[in-house]
Amino acid sequence: MARIDPDRLLHDLRRLADFGRWRTGVHRPTYSPDDMAARAWFAGRLEAAGLGVEIDGIGNVIGRSRHPGPALLIGSHIETQPQGGWLDGALGVIYGLEVARALPGRPIDIAAWADEEGHFGSFLGSRSATGVLDEAEIGRAENKHGGGISLRDALAEAGLAGRTRAVLPPDRYLGYLEAHIEQGDELESAELRLGVVTSIVGIWQYRLRFEGIQNHAGTTRMAIRRDAGAALVRLAAAIAEEFPRLAGPRSVWTVGRITLEPGAASIVPGGAEMLFQFRDADPAVLARMEQGLERMVAEADAAGPCRVVLAVLSRSTPKVMDPGLQAALTAAAAARAPGMHRMMPSGAGHDAQILAARMPAAMLFVPSIGGISHHIAEDTAEADIVLGCAVLADAAEALTQLAAPAHS
Amino acid sequence: MARIDPDRLLHDLRRLADFGRWRTGVHRPTYSPDDMAARAWFAGRLEAAGLGVEIDGIGNVIGRSRHPGPALLIGSHIETQPQGGWLDGALGVIYGLEVARALPGRPIDIAAWADEEGHFGSFLGSRSATGVLDEAEIGRAENKHGGGISLRDALAEAGLAGRTRAVLPPDRYLGYLEAHIEQGDELESAELRLGVVTSIVGIWQYRLRFEGIQNHAGTTRMAIRRDAGAALVRLAAAIAEEFPRLAGPRSVWTVGRITLEPGAASIVPGGAEMLFQFRDADPAVLARMEQGLERMVAEADAAGPCRVVLAVLSRSTPKVMDPGLQAALTAAAAARAPGMHRMMPSGAGHDAQILAARMPAAMLFVPSIGGISHHIAEDTAEADIVLGCAVLADAAEALTQLAAPAHS
Repeated sequence: MARIDPDRLLHDLRRLADFGRWRTGVHRPTYSPDDMAARAWFAGRLEAAGLGVEIDGIGNVIGRSRHPGPALLIGSHIETQPQGGWLDGALGVIYGLEVARALPGRPIDIAAWADEEGHFGSFLGSRSATGVLDEAEIGRAENKHGGGISLRDALAEAGLAGRTRAVLPPDRYLGYLEAHIEQGDELESAELRLGVVTSIVGIWQYRLRFEGIQNHAGTTRMAIRRDAGAALVRLAAAIAEEFPRLAGPRSVWTVGRITLEPGAASIVPGGAEMLFQFRDADPAVLARMEQGLERMVAEADAAGPCRVVLAVLSRSTPKVMDPGLQAALTAAAAARAPGMHRMMPSGAGHDAQILAARMPAAMLFVPSIGGISHHIAEDTAEADIVLGCAVLADAAEALTQLAAPAHS
Repeated sequence: MARIDPDRLLHDLRRLADFGRWRTGVHRPTYSPDDMAARAWFAGRLEAAGLGVEIDGIGNVIGRSRHPGPALLIGSHIETQPQGGWLDGALGVIYGLEVARALPGRPIDIAAWADEEGHFGSFLGSRSATGVLDEAEIGRAENKHGGGISLRDALAEAGLAGRTRAVLPPDRYLGYLEAHIEQGDELESAELRLGVVTSIVGIWQYRLRFEGIQNHAGTTRMAIRRDAGAALVRLAAAIAEEFPRLAGPRSVWTVGRITLEPGAASIVPGGAEMLFQFRDADPAVLARMEQGLERMVAEADAAGPCRVVLAVLSRSTPKVMDPGLQAALTAAAAARAPGMHRMMPSGAGHDAQILAARMPAAMLFVPSIGGISHHIAEDTAEADIVLGCAVLADAAEALTQLAAPAHS
């Protein structure tokens, strides 16, 4: 078994939380001064561990083993959600650092991807490293949290303008491992300590638009109203009623935003919009939910009095994790903590789904206390943090070879 | 019968629409340069009609007959909704001007109130003129459409700082008449041309707040969610189902705004709010609707999983119009256009409800084409505009006495 250093692991994990500390959590948006300071610090730690380190043109921190390979790639992301938690992303990159330190001489590369949290785009760092992010998209992107700051300006301000974006050669790698907090309560509820991810769910997102007629809320009789807000509430209630029948046992669905136009107390809304998404690991379940949604929208549109239009915003494909890497994680989990792991899908998106398009990929989860994430209360028991890293190190040890003695 | 001049009436009504013209409508927010230019122009027209004119410290334009009284007060407001229609308010003040011109020597005062449309407050002008607007409220008020401009700054910029606010002595007046477009489609649907207002509805407004737990939309199982948005949709749908049974035949109810927090596609809303209002002229119906609402909120709160809190934002009392003034309007309508009028409540608020607290008050409606108002498409047939003014003039003639010949 690999020997990690629990104190060193926890110390570095806590040190990383200093960058952008906010109450009990961390505020470290991509390319912010705190984020860039964290990347520089992390690069220094990788160097001290003997890796060759680069911070590339999109902000990815990549530490490369001198070993010719085939290598194992371990990573996650460094930036956080706005006023987010201290472990989301950070756990996975510090695990990588600790595994590299625990297994010197092994072909293990470490990556801290940029902008998994989507401050500027969608998986910018891992997509850049796998060669599917083009310059045109970079040119269009801007900060989603406002301020109108373009990605190019943010990169320039972060000191990354003019640097090459590193594209990782897939033939160097035997696979990618990413550890992460679960972000749900499934492990905790089952009193388990480790999750081996079988697949990352597909996320299908929609905008529902309702077109009515704006009018005076005092003088317009109920009988003649074409109230877009009322039409939205009616369909949203119907979806809430119907989806339990359409969904699979692990499906989730969410109305995240509702807007009535113009949004005043005394005006009958003339337009309304809602954002709706659902997730499942099974493509057949995703398709069934979409068909049900399309049917309900068509019925609402036909029934009137408001027009209802469904627009697809995105449909990601569920990504099945590599069986061989799952087996390595499972074996390590069973050896370190017998009976304490479960095979489970990931309901959240992760860089691993991007890497999975280029190389075998798998993920390891540790429990989230209370299932909380994207919040300053996000936390994991220390013993679970240490166990997860040890299991990841064991799997990495099993998957890689010691370097041949140097020719001398 | 009084003899108004239809061409002069229509000309002045169109001239007023030049101030802040916006496409086929008018954008003339209270105290904007366009609004102040319109007030100055209107003051000039009143002066030319022989009235003593004042623009007071809140922006009210008041034209006073030299007649000792008792006088009839006729008025409405000059400012418009943002990108609003050309007749809302404007019709009533130009009617007043034309009636004063058609009936020289009669004790008829004319008022163009400030800010009926509520850019800065609630019925600022008519409340100031009836003595129920205090300086503290003026000091707190700011522009509701953003910009953070305080009412005091707006008054100063409009050149009104330091002017006295005129409070009208109720004992001068035998009553107040206000003509207005209907803003609904009741007259048009019934193929009628005049409405004599029996009462102005009470408007009861509420904020419903839903407290859940914000969480990740991918990793939080449906079974354990406390989704504030879902709770809101459930209760809003229940209200839409139940209110037709609680309401009276003329009641209206409206959800004007819905907000989910934080309002992102991939976050289960932790908080949600909706603005809800209903209107009726019958206090018993208003009370019954409120009791129903309170019961539904309590049931939703008890059922969980989210807390639901009901806050009263405002409850205005329905204002019954004066029977004597209604009779004068009805007699004039029946004489000019037999069988073409109806007695009806006003579903919108008007300055007349403020004046009604100090003196007898009544209102006359003319049809709105398609029931449209607060929109650039707002319009009324020319013949209806002319008829309405003639009826108002006839009623004013019947209610007032010619001045005694001057002592000479």
